[in-house]
Amino acid sequence: MVTTNRIRAACVDDVRSKLRQRSDGYQAIVVVSGVANALTGEAGRRDHAELVRATAENLGVGPESVLAACTGVIGPRLPLSRVTAALPRVVQDLGEGWVALHQAASAILTTDTTVKMAGRSFRLTDGRRASVVGIAKGSGMIAPVLSPPQATTLAFLLTDAPLTGPGAQEILRAGTDQTFNMVCVDGDTSTNDMVLLLANGAAGGPPADSDPCVARAVEATLEDLAQQVAADGEGATKLLTVEVHGAADPGQARQAARAVTRSPLVKTALFGADPNVGRIACALGYSGAEFDPSRLSIVLVDGARRFPLLQEGRIAEELPHGGGSRLRLRLRQMDHVRLRIDLGAGTGEATAWGCDLSHGYVHINSAYRT
Amino acid sequence: MVTTNRIRAACVDDVRSKLRQRSDGYQAIVVVSGVANALTGEAGRRDHAELVRATAENLGVGPESVLAACTGVIGPRLPLSRVTAALPRVVQDLGEGWVALHQAASAILTTDTTVKMAGRSFRLTDGRRASVVGIAKGSGMIAPVLSPPQATTLAFLLTDAPLTGPGAQEILRAGTDQTFNMVCVDGDTSTNDMVLLLANGAAGGPPADSDPCVARAVEATLEDLAQQVAADGEGATKLLTVEVHGAADPGQARQAARAVTRSPLVKTALFGADPNVGRIACALGYSGAEFDPSRLSIVLVDGARRFPLLQEGRIAEELPHGGGSRLRLRLRQMDHVRLRIDLGAGTGEATAWGCDLSHGYVHINSAYRT
Repeated sequence: MVTTNRIRAACVDDVRSKLRQRSDGYQAIVVVSGVANALTGEAGRRDHAELVRATAENLGVGPESVLAACTGVIGPRLPLSRVTAALPRVVQDLGEGWVALHQAASAILTTDTTVKMAGRSFRLTDGRRASVVGIAKGSGMIAPVLSPPQATTLAFLLTDAPLTGPGAQEILRAGTDQTFNMVCVDGDTSTNDMVLLLANGAAGGPPADSDPCVARAVEATLEDLAQQVAADGEGATKLLTVEVHGAADPGQARQAARAVTRSPLVKTALFGADPNVGRIACALGYSGAEFDPSRLSIVLVDGARRFPLLQEGRIAEELPHGGGSRLRLRLRQMDHVRLRIDLGAGTGEATAWGCDLSHGYVHINSAYRT
Repeated sequence: MVTTNRIRAACVDDVRSKLRQRSDGYQAIVVVSGVANALTGEAGRRDHAELVRATAENLGVGPESVLAACTGVIGPRLPLSRVTAALPRVVQDLGEGWVALHQAASAILTTDTTVKMAGRSFRLTDGRRASVVGIAKGSGMIAPVLSPPQATTLAFLLTDAPLTGPGAQEILRAGTDQTFNMVCVDGDTSTNDMVLLLANGAAGGPPADSDPCVARAVEATLEDLAQQVAADGEGATKLLTVEVHGAADPGQARQAARAVTRSPLVKTALFGADPNVGRIACALGYSGAEFDPSRLSIVLVDGARRFPLLQEGRIAEELPHGGGSRLRLRLRQMDHVRLRIDLGAGTGEATAWGCDLSHGYVHINSAYRT
């Protein structure tokens, strides 16, 4: 899955064309953090080809089995000689298990402040044990719209479940649509977004492409990583989860949930611990989702407690005057704010993830070039 | 023209229903600043009706000839008794000319820092003299999508040109589409946006509905006000004008121009005086406009000087290394940044207006309830 942005990094173009030809046989992913290698034209394509060639050479595999991903500043060329000079040591240091995965998850970060890893052990329907693990990075320029051969969100999943190439693609597409494609930090869809899944079949048995146990484990891992990306959005102090219920259809539920997570006014209110339900309703109102305002309900979920903000179009008594001082105090303490919205227009549901908009976001993106 | 948001203030619903019945005979506009009277349900509708009734009574006109507009916090009810108690003095203080207009323009402000007025004297095609004047407010929750009976952008225009009701509506629709509908401060489309034009025909002569001189003067006045709104966006330190040329069609030009003005990464780079062309190209890439990245050119216009940032897909030499230190110095001094973008895909053109995203925006919207 790679970005749908019309401006695409050289690595994205290469993944697109490789996956159009064949979806299996991949053995390695090389990731460069710090430079996007986007808007670099023909020189960028040559740099990319050399990165892939040198990686393949060091690994002793063919260049057709190596995929590359980049993240960083758009415009500058790759510092190719520094990268290729480091490759022998990188290959020598390749390790196994969680420690190696943690090193990789750490190495790919840019403005991220936390390492993002997730994983599940599960049983295939036929009883065999399998696992899926994933790492991700992403903090700004986050509003992935990924399509089969499309942040800068990068996520890489590995599983030992037996999958064919097309089967793995379909499982990843379905999972990404419900997870990474529902994350928004700033609404800027990157030139470099990429989510890859490699499946080596080591768990044994026939292809499990249509085994729901695999799809569930992959989606759960993607959702876990997607939430970690949203929670670590540039400058973020709070993770925001928006669940929309009662939409006319699932597409409208997605539009509604994404509008709330994208709204700068909702995001700044959240930073200020202000339960400003008017701004939430306003974002729903322009989202494109159809609903009757007199049937709209919005609840703030705080663990087992429910704070109604809006009930069938009526603002909760506490809120208009003084802006809900109890709620403000509670909001100030929460690092994960969950909104449950009922549009009262049908049965469509969707969940989106975002974060608040703080002084940190402005500082990171105005004082430094990213 | 009123907001297309599905959550609409009581005043917006009233204007919609009045203008659906008839488009002429209006004599007064009453504006309440501080409270939006949105999400207030049936009580809000009663409050609105009483506001209109009391205004009409004080003016000695029928309530059907009074329009109302509100701006402010969503959720609370109007402080009706305070408003109606003030009406006799408001009516008594009604004045003429620029001084009265300035008082009105000042009274309707919320988080605005400047009074917004504009006007033109012009000649009708038949030689008669006419004028159009306008006032506006708007600083946050600005991304108007106005349609014939749709920020909280409010703008009120008065002209003495002779126009029929339907003629005035069409001139206002065409002008608003090219001006207020192309302004974006934060991407949040308000529940209360309203742009009204009253024409009293005092210039004399037959209806001038299809006189291009009137349409030009109205659009010029709207554009002037729209730019003032963008320049005074919450926390803004710079006005951003984005001209897109060479789009496949005018609709795609609009999408492309609006994507750049809406991008938080472009807006924060602008605040940091960073000529970050990668972020601009990225926004164009996800805008939905079709173009070939190798034909994309982006120029920073500084009066008579042109700084090329991207030429047919190639980043200007100066930019990648050090980020264009000369340009940064110049950008720091500019309070109006103009970008001229050529998509190289056709002849479609559009202009959009926005502003930078500063610590001021975050402060205003997190520390205070608006």
